[in-house]
Amino acid sequence: MAEILHLQDTVSGATFAPTQAEYFNPAIGQVATFDVLYDYEQLRATLDRDRLKANPNRGMWRYRELLPLAPDAPVPPLAVGGTPLYEAPRLAQALGLSQAWVKDDGANPTASLKDRASSMVVALAMSRGITTVSTASTGNAAAALAGVGASLHQAMEIVIFVPSSAPIAKIAQLLVYGARVVLVKGTYDQAFDLCYDVCLEKGWYCRNTGINPYTTEGKKTVSFEIAEQLHWQVPDVVVVSVGDGSIIGGIHKGFVELYQLGWTTKVPRLIGVQAQGSSPLVQAWQDHIDGTDMQPIAVSTLADSISAGLPRDRMKALRAVRSTQGAFVAVTDAEIVETIPTFARLTGVFAEPSSSVIYAGIERAIQLGYIHSEESVVFVSTGNGLKDVARAQQSVTQNGLLVEPDLDSVLKAINQAW
Amino acid sequence: MAEILHLQDTVSGATFAPTQAEYFNPAIGQVATFDVLYDYEQLRATLDRDRLKANPNRGMWRYRELLPLAPDAPVPPLAVGGTPLYEAPRLAQALGLSQAWVKDDGANPTASLKDRASSMVVALAMSRGITTVSTASTGNAAAALAGVGASLHQAMEIVIFVPSSAPIAKIAQLLVYGARVVLVKGTYDQAFDLCYDVCLEKGWYCRNTGINPYTTEGKKTVSFEIAEQLHWQVPDVVVVSVGDGSIIGGIHKGFVELYQLGWTTKVPRLIGVQAQGSSPLVQAWQDHIDGTDMQPIAVSTLADSISAGLPRDRMKALRAVRSTQGAFVAVTDAEIVETIPTFARLTGVFAEPSSSVIYAGIERAIQLGYIHSEESVVFVSTGNGLKDVARAQQSVTQNGLLVEPDLDSVLKAINQAW
Repeated sequence: MAEILHLQDTVSGATFAPTQAEYFNPAIGQVATFDVLYDYEQLRATLDRDRLKANPNRGMWRYRELLPLAPDAPVPPLAVGGTPLYEAPRLAQALGLSQAWVKDDGANPTASLKDRASSMVVALAMSRGITTVSTASTGNAAAALAGVGASLHQAMEIVIFVPSSAPIAKIAQLLVYGARVVLVKGTYDQAFDLCYDVCLEKGWYCRNTGINPYTTEGKKTVSFEIAEQLHWQVPDVVVVSVGDGSIIGGIHKGFVELYQLGWTTKVPRLIGVQAQGSSPLVQAWQDHIDGTDMQPIAVSTLADSISAGLPRDRMKALRAVRSTQGAFVAVTDAEIVETIPTFARLTGVFAEPSSSVIYAGIERAIQLGYIHSEESVVFVSTGNGLKDVARAQQSVTQNGLLVEPDLDSVLKAINQAW
Repeated sequence: MAEILHLQDTVSGATFAPTQAEYFNPAIGQVATFDVLYDYEQLRATLDRDRLKANPNRGMWRYRELLPLAPDAPVPPLAVGGTPLYEAPRLAQALGLSQAWVKDDGANPTASLKDRASSMVVALAMSRGITTVSTASTGNAAAALAGVGASLHQAMEIVIFVPSSAPIAKIAQLLVYGARVVLVKGTYDQAFDLCYDVCLEKGWYCRNTGINPYTTEGKKTVSFEIAEQLHWQVPDVVVVSVGDGSIIGGIHKGFVELYQLGWTTKVPRLIGVQAQGSSPLVQAWQDHIDGTDMQPIAVSTLADSISAGLPRDRMKALRAVRSTQGAFVAVTDAEIVETIPTFARLTGVFAEPSSSVIYAGIERAIQLGYIHSEESVVFVSTGNGLKDVARAQQSVTQNGLLVEPDLDSVLKAINQAW
């Protein structure tokens, strides 16, 4: 395991022992969750990346020596992580890049990268004897927490706070897993705050994005996998979609830690893609605004998983891009929809809109000169297209070939059409 | 690779060289696809199960020495197979079994076990220089073929035949992957026959279930994985849902081959679960009717992936159950829907209705004395619940807890309700 050196407030730099504070610096408030920091000098001296070769575990717990969990602590059984990294020559060619790969994190058990965060948080709850974990979300984070919870051999209560206006189908999935669902007559932000307050009141563990610092620890494992799958040759650029900013923050931490351990020789430039209707981080990055100075804005995009007016993990997201000389770019909703089949056809990976958006994002980034043709790029696909089949349906403009049910008609139609 | 000894007609026992016939014995017709048979004595003498430990490939191609593909032949990049086998103590307890595991094949790239068959068939097409592969299906097989095709580094045409009445959302998924879709103004059976006829006419490779014998070769890899994941201790019973019967046939062949190789000491009893409204195999098995004598019946069930009035792979399905002293059982549509949350809550695996049906099936099999409490059982979950979220929605009877957006109201409501 990685022994925690301290929790560090990303705003003030103040440090805390893990027993002193839980989620964020109380003097600063919910602007940013802690960085969970380790003694990297010591880890560097004791750990060896080549020892991983003998580890039969292909999932995220393969890297448990870099996670804050005792060696004998049980972990949720759900097989999270170990997702494929596909070389994508046709994708590269279409974009004029020399090399491209797709990290398909939609292949996780509940079909999104969020499984990594939920698995980490539930493992911590188990090790602390906590029996209820709660989050506010209607989307991937909630499904991940409900699924991870249902997989445990000893039951744990999962409580999900959602605005009562949330789509019934998304709530149904949580109920299928046996999660308890609190339908708040209010906004998502109200559900978020109530979840946190109830957790404090009841002693539940709060998994909220932007509250719980260990979600970053789970998410960083995607970078460990990318690096190992590329035989520790880090790509020039990693691109991912951004809403609350917690995934890009986690990806960044993963690559920074590998560099600090001496397992890799660089940290890739990170490019975050937002929907134009929900792009406060693009704005803040362009205008050189600090995360602490960002104000909530009204947002509207069909890519619901990346819709956030005041990104909860804005400090970590801005740092990820700024410190790597990366960029934030925005793409329109029309581009997001078009991108679903483009991405699927070039890679075989059917991604949800909030995820396939990276294709249009890279096009934009290339146009703007943020990426050059000789560079190697990893696309992190964060969610499976089966999460939003209705949108996929909207994305295909051609239909099938309608034919009469006899061989001659079919052959004639096929020969004419193709 | 496994050199093919011959293709054997399951009805007459007649054998053919792979160059002599493609799909089935022309003298018998489409009653049954060939068995693809190898020289097991030779394989037994040359292969060693322990050598697998050094194989870094976790997917189905891990077993390519038992598949009919040259060692240097390229395979589709999609990461098919290598799905988790979860120990499920709470599932076992709920059913009064001593040990239960869930093989989660919904974790495959296009979210069903059919990826194994499509990947095998496309690999064969590639090795033969065939540039178009076609199938008739609206469901998992079509999505699998379209996805596998889209993942290739050198483009291959995928043509899917569907009845024009097929749900638009299912067709959309195929179009997203770039497959060509032929909408036949007729029944599924007409689309099926037209697909086969057009393949013959155009020199396309036909992947149809019950036509192409190599789908079984792909599907058998799920048994190889189960056995290896259990350290070659084969369970007493394997249970799986059955429509056309090709999956249970593939599972059977996998376990038989391992036994013939001397890698395992028994073949598990196979229990096939059908929907009551589509249970011709239950009937044939109970009435001791041969596959060749089965007649098409009218069927109706909400579990569309296992709806089949004259199962296309009936010979192999009946043989799988009869030769292992297994059983076929039927469950009602109401039980199928109820089972979705039951299965998810006990395992963390969200399965589609055609797959979660196995839970109700095992309950029935235990009642009928086909399974005993001291036996170990593997449940093969064939498809992901995200394939049919609408049905999952129908399956949950309780709703969330509706609350006013203030802390006092929430706490009061929670304390009262739970």
